[in-house]
Amino acid sequence: MNPPETPAVGARAHRLAHTPAHTPETSHLPLGPGAEFDAVRAMLDVWGAQARGIGDDGALLDVPPGTRLVVSTDTSVEDVHFRRAWMTPEEIGYRAAMAALSDLAAMGAAPLGLLVAATVPTDWRDVLTEVARGIGAAAAATGSPIVGGDVTAGDRLALGITVLGVTAQPISRGGARDGDRLFVTGTLGGPRRALLAWESGGVPRPEDRARFVAPTARIAAGQWLAAHGATAMLDLSDGLAGDAAHLAEASGVRVTIDLDRLPRVEGVSGVEAARSGEEYELLVAGPAALAEAWPFAAAGLPLTEIGVVSLGAGVALLGDAAGALRADAHDHFRHDIP
Amino acid sequence: MNPPETPAVGARAHRLAHTPAHTPETSHLPLGPGAEFDAVRAMLDVWGAQARGIGDDGALLDVPPGTRLVVSTDTSVEDVHFRRAWMTPEEIGYRAAMAALSDLAAMGAAPLGLLVAATVPTDWRDVLTEVARGIGAAAAATGSPIVGGDVTAGDRLALGITVLGVTAQPISRGGARDGDRLFVTGTLGGPRRALLAWESGGVPRPEDRARFVAPTARIAAGQWLAAHGATAMLDLSDGLAGDAAHLAEASGVRVTIDLDRLPRVEGVSGVEAARSGEEYELLVAGPAALAEAWPFAAAGLPLTEIGVVSLGAGVALLGDAAGALRADAHDHFRHDIP
Repeated sequence: MNPPETPAVGARAHRLAHTPAHTPETSHLPLGPGAEFDAVRAMLDVWGAQARGIGDDGALLDVPPGTRLVVSTDTSVEDVHFRRAWMTPEEIGYRAAMAALSDLAAMGAAPLGLLVAATVPTDWRDVLTEVARGIGAAAAATGSPIVGGDVTAGDRLALGITVLGVTAQPISRGGARDGDRLFVTGTLGGPRRALLAWESGGVPRPEDRARFVAPTARIAAGQWLAAHGATAMLDLSDGLAGDAAHLAEASGVRVTIDLDRLPRVEGVSGVEAARSGEEYELLVAGPAALAEAWPFAAAGLPLTEIGVVSLGAGVALLGDAAGALRADAHDHFRHDIP
Repeated sequence: MNPPETPAVGARAHRLAHTPAHTPETSHLPLGPGAEFDAVRAMLDVWGAQARGIGDDGALLDVPPGTRLVVSTDTSVEDVHFRRAWMTPEEIGYRAAMAALSDLAAMGAAPLGLLVAATVPTDWRDVLTEVARGIGAAAAATGSPIVGGDVTAGDRLALGITVLGVTAQPISRGGARDGDRLFVTGTLGGPRRALLAWESGGVPRPEDRARFVAPTARIAAGQWLAAHGATAMLDLSDGLAGDAAHLAEASGVRVTIDLDRLPRVEGVSGVEAARSGEEYELLVAGPAALAEAWPFAAAGLPLTEIGVVSLGAGVALLGDAAGALRADAHDHFRHDIP
C-alpha cells in the first residue's frame, strides 16, 4: 500500500460518473473503500445534489429529440493559465469551469452537464474542496449538473473540464456572410489590465480582477443570438483582434472592425481592448436587427456593433489607434501578455 | 511573444473541436496562424479523416433517437499510470485511449466520439505525433471519430480522454440480482506480471507486455452482453477482487467467486489473477445462458463463469488460494502493485 499522495504506477485514478440512481434513497452508487476515494467524497460533499448519480463507469444523459449534442474540453493549468497567488482556490475552480462553459455559449447551446478531470498536487489537497466549490458555483450559475470526472496525482494543479450541451440551432464560427454586421457582447479590457498589473508585481483594480477571476459564460445570450439570426459566433479567448481573424478565416470572409467603437472599461484604449484575451464575451456576425432586439441590456450586458463582414479575407482595423495595433500585429495576440 | 514551449500565463491552450464542414473541400475549419497551432496541425496530419471538422468552439454530434448518451473521462499521467521507459509513445497513446473507451464497453455503449486533452512537456513535443498515432489507432479499432480536444504545456505528459457513446440498453454496475451468475471476459494476470517485472528492474514476457501496453476495450462484447440479459457490468481496472467489491456494493448484493475458475495466463495463480489490475476485461452479472450463447470464443475471447450473486453484502472468495488473498485483503487491491 502506498499513501494516496504517491499512488503506485498502475494505480487507477478514481472516477466519478453519472448513472441512474439505483435506489430512491441515494442518487449515487456507493463508492468502494480506500483513501483514494476520499478526495472524490470531499468533492461530492461540496456539490451535494449538483453531482448526480456518481459511481458508474460512464454517465448517462438524455439528448432531447430534435437537438444536437455539443461537446468541448478545456484545460486550466497552474502557471500556464493562471498563478496560484492571483486567485483563491474557489476562484480558480469557478474560472476554469466558466471558461469551458463559454464554448457552449459560443455554439448557442444549453448546458447538459460537465465532467471534471482534476490533476491534484499534494499541496493542493487541503483546498480541493474550495476548488470544487468554485466549479459547483459555475455549474449552478449555468444550470449544468456535474456528471463525472476523475482525480489523479500530479505536479501542478490542472483542471480539465469537458462540457456537454444541446442545441437545435448550432452556430459555427464559419458562417459569417458578406453584408453581416459584427457585434460583441459586454465591455472589454479588464482581464488584460488585470494580467498586466499582476505580471508587473502590482495589484489589479478590483473591477479588472473580478473580470479575470470570475468571467461569465454568456449561455443565455448565445442561445438568444442563435435563435435570432446570428450567422457566426465565437467566444473571445485570444483577444478580439486575433479571434476576429479566426472568424474571418473560418468563414472565408473579410472582417472590418472600428476600434473606436469597441465597448471598453474606463481608461482602456481601443487597441488595448482589442488585445485583451480571456474575456469570454461573444463575437457575433449577423443582421443589424440583432442589436435592436437585444434583450440583455437591462441586465447590464450590452451588445455593440463594431464592424462589418465583406467579401475577401483577413481583418481590417479602422480608427485612430488602428495603426499602432497593426504595427505589432505581425503574428497574433495569443502570447501578447507580458 | 513567448516561445511555444513556455506560453505566457493567460495564453489559451489551442483547441480542437468538431463542427460541420463549411465547404465540401475540407472537413476542418481553417486554423489560425501561430506556433501554438503547430502541435494541433501535426496531430491532425496523423489522424487524417479520423478527426472530423476540427476548429470550432465545440463539437457537434448526433445522438440517435431512442438512445441515451454515455460519457466518461479518464486521465493517464506519466509516472502515475505509466513510465515512459516501459512503452513507446505510440503505445502510451493507444493505451490511454483504450482505457477510456473501456468505460463505454462496460456500459454496453457504442462509441460516438472521443476528445483528447493533452498536457505536453517540452521533451515530449518531438514524439507527440507518435502519441497521436496511438490514439488514432485505438479510435480506429473502435470506430470512434476524434471530435475535439486541447493541448497545453506542462511538466509531465498527461492524456485526458473523454469518450462519448450511445446505448439503448445501458448497463450499470448496480443491477446484479440474487441468483445471477458472475462472468469475466478474457484471460487475466498478464498486466500485473508485466508491472511486477518492470518494477523489479526486469523485462516482461512479450505476451504480458502486450496485455499491458495494448489492452482492448471490449466494445462489441459489452454491447452483446447488454443485449443478452447482463444485469451489471464494469471493466476490470483495479483487479477482479476489488472490482467485484465495487459491483457487490453498488448492487447491494453478495458476490462469491471461485478463484480456481478464473481464466488466467499460464503460470499465474488464481490469487494473482484476482489482483491483476489494468486488465480492461469485463466483469459481468447475468443469467447462466450468457455463456452458452457467447459468440466471441471463436475470435479468441472467452467468457468464463467464475461465481454467483446472492443476497447479502461483500465478496466471498472460494478455492485453494482464497485464504492467502483474504489474509492481505485488508483494504483493497488498487495500490497493490509494488
